[in-house]
Amino acid sequence: MKFPNWLSQRSVQKRDTIALIFRSSSNQESEYWTYSQLEAQVNQCVDYLQALGIKSGDRVGLLLTNHPRYIILVYALVKCQAVAVFLNIRLTAEELRWQIEDSLTRYLFCDQVTKAIAKNIQIDNLIMCEFLGSLTQERNLKNENINLENIQGIFYTSGTTGKPKGVPLTYSNHFHSAIASALNLGVESDDNWLLCMPMFHVGGCAIAWRSVINGTTLTLLPKFDEQEVLDAIVNEKVTLISLVPTMLTRLLRHPDRQNLQKLRAILLGGAPASRELIEQCLELNLSIMPTYGMTEAASQITTLSPHQVALKQGSSGLPLFGNRLRIVDDSIQELTNGAIGQILIQGASMMRGYLNTNIATQDGWIHTGDLGYLDRDGYLYVVSRRADLIISGGENIYPTEIEAILLEHPAIAEVCVVGICDREWGEIVAAVIVTEAKLSLEDIRQYCEQKSLARYKLPKLISIWTSLPKSSSGKLLRQNIRDRLGRSIVMAIAILC
Amino acid sequence: MKFPNWLSQRSVQKRDTIALIFRSSSNQESEYWTYSQLEAQVNQCVDYLQALGIKSGDRVGLLLTNHPRYIILVYALVKCQAVAVFLNIRLTAEELRWQIEDSLTRYLFCDQVTKAIAKNIQIDNLIMCEFLGSLTQERNLKNENINLENIQGIFYTSGTTGKPKGVPLTYSNHFHSAIASALNLGVESDDNWLLCMPMFHVGGCAIAWRSVINGTTLTLLPKFDEQEVLDAIVNEKVTLISLVPTMLTRLLRHPDRQNLQKLRAILLGGAPASRELIEQCLELNLSIMPTYGMTEAASQITTLSPHQVALKQGSSGLPLFGNRLRIVDDSIQELTNGAIGQILIQGASMMRGYLNTNIATQDGWIHTGDLGYLDRDGYLYVVSRRADLIISGGENIYPTEIEAILLEHPAIAEVCVVGICDREWGEIVAAVIVTEAKLSLEDIRQYCEQKSLARYKLPKLISIWTSLPKSSSGKLLRQNIRDRLGRSIVMAIAILC
Repeated sequence: MKFPNWLSQRSVQKRDTIALIFRSSSNQESEYWTYSQLEAQVNQCVDYLQALGIKSGDRVGLLLTNHPRYIILVYALVKCQAVAVFLNIRLTAEELRWQIEDSLTRYLFCDQVTKAIAKNIQIDNLIMCEFLGSLTQERNLKNENINLENIQGIFYTSGTTGKPKGVPLTYSNHFHSAIASALNLGVESDDNWLLCMPMFHVGGCAIAWRSVINGTTLTLLPKFDEQEVLDAIVNEKVTLISLVPTMLTRLLRHPDRQNLQKLRAILLGGAPASRELIEQCLELNLSIMPTYGMTEAASQITTLSPHQVALKQGSSGLPLFGNRLRIVDDSIQELTNGAIGQILIQGASMMRGYLNTNIATQDGWIHTGDLGYLDRDGYLYVVSRRADLIISGGENIYPTEIEAILLEHPAIAEVCVVGICDREWGEIVAAVIVTEAKLSLEDIRQYCEQKSLARYKLPKLISIWTSLPKSSSGKLLRQNIRDRLGRSIVMAIAILC
Repeated sequence: MKFPNWLSQRSVQKRDTIALIFRSSSNQESEYWTYSQLEAQVNQCVDYLQALGIKSGDRVGLLLTNHPRYIILVYALVKCQAVAVFLNIRLTAEELRWQIEDSLTRYLFCDQVTKAIAKNIQIDNLIMCEFLGSLTQERNLKNENINLENIQGIFYTSGTTGKPKGVPLTYSNHFHSAIASALNLGVESDDNWLLCMPMFHVGGCAIAWRSVINGTTLTLLPKFDEQEVLDAIVNEKVTLISLVPTMLTRLLRHPDRQNLQKLRAILLGGAPASRELIEQCLELNLSIMPTYGMTEAASQITTLSPHQVALKQGSSGLPLFGNRLRIVDDSIQELTNGAIGQILIQGASMMRGYLNTNIATQDGWIHTGDLGYLDRDGYLYVVSRRADLIISGGENIYPTEIEAILLEHPAIAEVCVVGICDREWGEIVAAVIVTEAKLSLEDIRQYCEQKSLARYKLPKLISIWTSLPKSSSGKLLRQNIRDRLGRSIVMAIAILC
């Protein structure tokens, strides 16, 4: 199905509405773009991209920090019918190279912050993304249609099997995600959504799609910073925000936390929110909306309404309009009695399957691997994220990826990586190791650092045990290890990196 | 693409939100249904329909006045995967029979008002629609998916070629129409849309789809009545209304017209609004939104924002999000310089083609036959509705249909039916006739009445001329006739029926 270009149409309908506000810092003047100004910049960026040789179907890597040029580049790639590959700037050159090869990325955009690492990736077409500002404001319409079935972008999720998996999301996925959110939150003419999480995460990127589809304002920060967020809310009249629990915890510690009361809604996702955090929000009368989402669903799947937060403590709410949920047992039989089982999801915002794999959706349902249950009103309670996923400060970390690297070490016999609860980060990465030869904790730490693992994936706690508890079939008893580690932290021979 | 049933999902998400309010009259208590109560009623109606033998794919005619049972029946037919055929209750039995045969309708629902005419149609399965109220409130979930590509219903438009044409609209058409409207007007949690036009017109039916998709409140009146509308606005806290100009003109004459100021928006469509009407609204500071729509587009195509009404007088606004417009000359070449030409439309809310005809959309565009132009900002100005369409009180009347009937009379040699401007009705039907034999005006009037023409199509003014002006190629010069008739009304030998 074809659609007029979203931004182009909004640039006509909402010509003088503020589309984008950028605050590089509280000390600097904010920059503003109306929809028509943004469209003009995007059209000039299209010329620039075409001059570089970028054409329909090309995969273009974005290794960029949050900046208006990121937004402009994404919208310009839409008009070039090229596919954006969203790269996590916290990964190592080796991890990035793997994703670039896997996604057949031919062009890579970097900026001042990411250029050092980008140079280590070795790609022919490495481009410093600095066009913004050098372009004049001349108007130049390029209003191609959007084919909703085409792939807009590829995001990588940490894979349960060690290697990350590419998630191709279509325009239809983004459209339906934005619509489902609009039909949940409503759309008000003064809506202004603050984007303070990385654009390379689907939760950040989705804010940009929602804003242009709704024809409302997006306020962009270069990164999360408590003071900057709280200042922006007041100075730019922000009404909506998306946060991970770690961010909200920090904001609540800030003396200006009452600024959060000005928000119409605080979307809280990316990781489970603690009971303590929810209660703090209730005391402050904040309109929080805990949500369950994932890259594969182009962000939100279920969301809890603010007025239900007190009544349905711990729930992630109901499926958004257009989404469906099922809870199944190991034989994929539906569980209807509130029993815990695997969460299956279905909806128009969801990917068809992973890139370069045969792992497609099964019977039209995505098997999330997450465990949860539904209460009698149909509200979802997520019991544990897929398998043994560790979520630290909103970043997903798969134990198997870290374990595979540790097992390559000749002196390591067995390993189990788990997440340990942490007040600020939600979880931190912990590795329990059985050694074959003499190995110091410092040796292990240094080995991990050499292994080109992104910093946030490095074990913060390493513990050496004589053996690991296993089931009769030889499977690691992760929960058992996690519990024992939690109890014995003070006693264990542990090093905090 | 599959979607969870719209009503079922809202009945979970918005269980206690008022879905439907019915005011049979100001003297009676209003009736209220929450989303969960409405869903329960619909589920019981499904049982009732299935007991009648109605099954997937069946075409079911609805010859009904506005009433909650109309809404319930439409939603229940969705769950039966049956196709609703929306029939205009103002048509004659003969006209209805034609549409019922054309659409292969197997079941016909009528009510107390329509039963007399329904009995003359001769259909095997004629059902008095009285189930509402006799049903208990027991909950009985039947949450089938909706396949967006399936046909939801068939509406008939008066055809330019004499016979009406069926317009099949899919769930996707209704969905995108509702979304486009939501992305134009916004969605606020207290939204409450008043439905006072017939449900059998797409403009009425679209209000019901929008309300359930947005999860907001629908207030239903049995029919348009100035006092009832103005009372309902205040008593039910209505925020949105759809009107045709004739209705708005009447409301503005009423002493309680200031009640209209409580509305967030007044959608004004179905026929062109006069300059005088627009100016009256501006004086009263009413948020009117003139719109250009048609059955083939599942209602709105373009809409003018309230703040543009004074600046863009006479315009029908910009295409809604997802819609596109082109103005073309006779060779279907695009006109870009503000020149007048035929209006072509494209968008996700638009039908694929007429029922039982080869007249599909051409190159993905619907050729409306309407004439208009775009100003430099892309705003549409409709110059004349398709060919010689007469719009009287919001009902579309095609001259060719009336002309064909008049020409069957042995004493009538030539005829031209045109619309004459009327303060209240927008236009009234006028017939100019050349007779071969002696024929009184009274003879003609009686002849028309025998011919099973809906009352609103009967010529209100008949004038006998000695000849009709024609072009060199023999085509009637309709504009010339209309002008001459307008000037000479007082002099002509005319009868006002």
